[in-house]
Amino acid sequence: MADFIMAQGNARTITGVDKIFTASSKAKELIARYGKEKVANSTIGALLDDRGELMILPTVAELLKELSPAEFAEYAPIAGIPEYLEAVRTAVFESYRPQSAVEAVASPGGTGAIRNAIENYTRRGELVLTADWFWAPYRTICQEIERDLATFALFTPDFRFNLPALEAAVREILSKQDRLLLILNTPAHNPTGYTLTDEDWDGILSVLRTACADKTKQIAVLADIAYMDFAGEAERFRSFLRKLDGDLPSNLISLIAFSMSKSFTLYGMRCGALLCMHKDPAVAAEFKKVCSFSGRGTWSNCSRAPMIILSRICSDPALKQKLEQERSEFLHLLQKRGQAFVAAAEEAGLCLAPYQSGFFISIPCADPDAAAEHLHQERIVLVPLAKGLRVSVASLSEAWCHVLPARIKAALDATQGGNK
Amino acid sequence: MADFIMAQGNARTITGVDKIFTASSKAKELIARYGKEKVANSTIGALLDDRGELMILPTVAELLKELSPAEFAEYAPIAGIPEYLEAVRTAVFESYRPQSAVEAVASPGGTGAIRNAIENYTRRGELVLTADWFWAPYRTICQEIERDLATFALFTPDFRFNLPALEAAVREILSKQDRLLLILNTPAHNPTGYTLTDEDWDGILSVLRTACADKTKQIAVLADIAYMDFAGEAERFRSFLRKLDGDLPSNLISLIAFSMSKSFTLYGMRCGALLCMHKDPAVAAEFKKVCSFSGRGTWSNCSRAPMIILSRICSDPALKQKLEQERSEFLHLLQKRGQAFVAAAEEAGLCLAPYQSGFFISIPCADPDAAAEHLHQERIVLVPLAKGLRVSVASLSEAWCHVLPARIKAALDATQGGNK
Repeated sequence: MADFIMAQGNARTITGVDKIFTASSKAKELIARYGKEKVANSTIGALLDDRGELMILPTVAELLKELSPAEFAEYAPIAGIPEYLEAVRTAVFESYRPQSAVEAVASPGGTGAIRNAIENYTRRGELVLTADWFWAPYRTICQEIERDLATFALFTPDFRFNLPALEAAVREILSKQDRLLLILNTPAHNPTGYTLTDEDWDGILSVLRTACADKTKQIAVLADIAYMDFAGEAERFRSFLRKLDGDLPSNLISLIAFSMSKSFTLYGMRCGALLCMHKDPAVAAEFKKVCSFSGRGTWSNCSRAPMIILSRICSDPALKQKLEQERSEFLHLLQKRGQAFVAAAEEAGLCLAPYQSGFFISIPCADPDAAAEHLHQERIVLVPLAKGLRVSVASLSEAWCHVLPARIKAALDATQGGNK
Repeated sequence: MADFIMAQGNARTITGVDKIFTASSKAKELIARYGKEKVANSTIGALLDDRGELMILPTVAELLKELSPAEFAEYAPIAGIPEYLEAVRTAVFESYRPQSAVEAVASPGGTGAIRNAIENYTRRGELVLTADWFWAPYRTICQEIERDLATFALFTPDFRFNLPALEAAVREILSKQDRLLLILNTPAHNPTGYTLTDEDWDGILSVLRTACADKTKQIAVLADIAYMDFAGEAERFRSFLRKLDGDLPSNLISLIAFSMSKSFTLYGMRCGALLCMHKDPAVAAEFKKVCSFSGRGTWSNCSRAPMIILSRICSDPALKQKLEQERSEFLHLLQKRGQAFVAAAEEAGLCLAPYQSGFFISIPCADPDAAAEHLHQERIVLVPLAKGLRVSVASLSEAWCHVLPARIKAALDATQGGNK
């Protein structure tokens, strides 16, 4: 939208088109016309069963039913109810006890947590850095508060983590500004399903340590862990958190964006938290203060019912174990879909970005919009990104996962979309 | 906080002290120590019964119980589910059908709606205008996105609406900037309980029309109607909305911040909406686009369950009538408290800002902090504002309302606080 009538642009590029929600609307139209079973709706960032129904953890559903009206209706404190903030630590760290000072502040979902990280650890006009395969709202969140997003190439041409690209981007940005916020969506990266390895993290932290040798610089590294509980075995996919809790430079702060949306299947209740880890408790206390101010001045307090639900789960080992069992069944279903898709892609000669686990698989291609449009004609709806197509295996039946890769390959061939 | 370690100040004054939540914590400490009946907790912006329990509309509580897990758990669209946006219009306008183009976008409570109004209808560095008796978070919301708050004297010395003060402030601000956002909290103003009359509104709109004669200026007038349903008779206290729907200059947009917190006693579920009215549908369409962008880039979508509840109520006339009957009983209880407080104040010679209805009564005084501290020693907790003390009759029993004014008068006398 180049011209505004009454509203102010405020350094934002507002097209009015959100690719994820637009694709989702297209899928709904097709379903209304042809019926659910005739449409591959691969747009939804939520885990659906093979009939297309939202999968809700039974323990969570039961807790919802048990809540009293007052537990829904009362205001929570701005930073979140204390039991929730305690529960968030358990949900994030599990058995691990960080050495650093840790603080947490509630937020509406992961989005609110990311927003508060950007607001409080960068300044207006600055660049925020993330990978070139990225969840598009990162840019929206940056622009909404007059920052912008820069990207580094996540992968080398042979699809390994591209540390030199990150290093160059960090150096480039810090030559222009004194602060850097680096957002890393891992494990089970949205949109590719790649998980940064412990070795990748060692490299990343080495780059950041080097940058931090210049004490005029301040760096925040934000792990967006929205999909962590659908990456695989809980402890294994949390090992990187120990590195963020390591003996890091004083001018480096570790941030974690936690969300109940996927991990507890409470997408629509909008509850998450931003956490920090830093060896200096004063830095953690400052974090709590500035993030509370941001909450008060943006959405006030956050939704109370999901906070109570998480508090109940994390304070009751038997209940927590029951939930984890349920979640492992959900995970298993998701893994089977992912395996089916990957195997079918190999058979069809369809090149994928390196998927390991999670909700999404990405297909590199030269003209994602053309390919998505072509597939839409065949009642296959997925989200075109800047660098490829995003397929949500979370919202596709396993049957579709077997057949989709060949159809996508054909569409890429038809639209001369390339595929690497 | 003058110095930051790792966080960025970003033009905000972050003291870490929120007067409302601090007072509320003090009250909780006293209650834990002395018991509920020994403490006058007059800090809470929620309607409590005479035993200090949150009052929840029975119809709303029943609807909560009937919701399916999926109705809680599914994502809502960014702008809100369509049925909700339709229901919001009914909840705001009741039987009235605006002539203007109207749009609405969901927000987390009234706070999110106000935030989106400021973000989209002012620019960084600009002043936002409201009355000098104001809900303190207005300033927080402004500062969080690098605006600041200016105030005009709400009342003349004899406690009438001070139109000349508004007029002077509008002229002054528009001599410095080309945009103006004016926030008016009415009816049943927080913190005084004053309702702008239709004549007050005629004066305000006349001032704004005059200012709009300069077509290089753009003005947005935002009615924060959080307390509208506890002001009194529904249609009467909505009559001013017709004026905001009048034949207004093209460079004037009417905005309305709606909240389910008080009107539907769903404080902790964080659901509201920002509405606009403008004769040009293109201006309304632009509003929808920019506010949706803001939502996507701040909190993503909003909580779905309260949207469904409002949709159910507003699409079922019998249910709506039942709820209104329940709410009128709540209102009656609140009115009795207000009347008791006003009568006791008169008897005690305590001067009040002109209260008519609503959750709060304000007592002008010279040193609100000293008076609040003095009263705290007597286990009476209220919120010190810049210009006086705020008493929440919503959270006090009627018995307390009879005795509190004399105690407050004595505290003001003891602290030489003045009272006018």
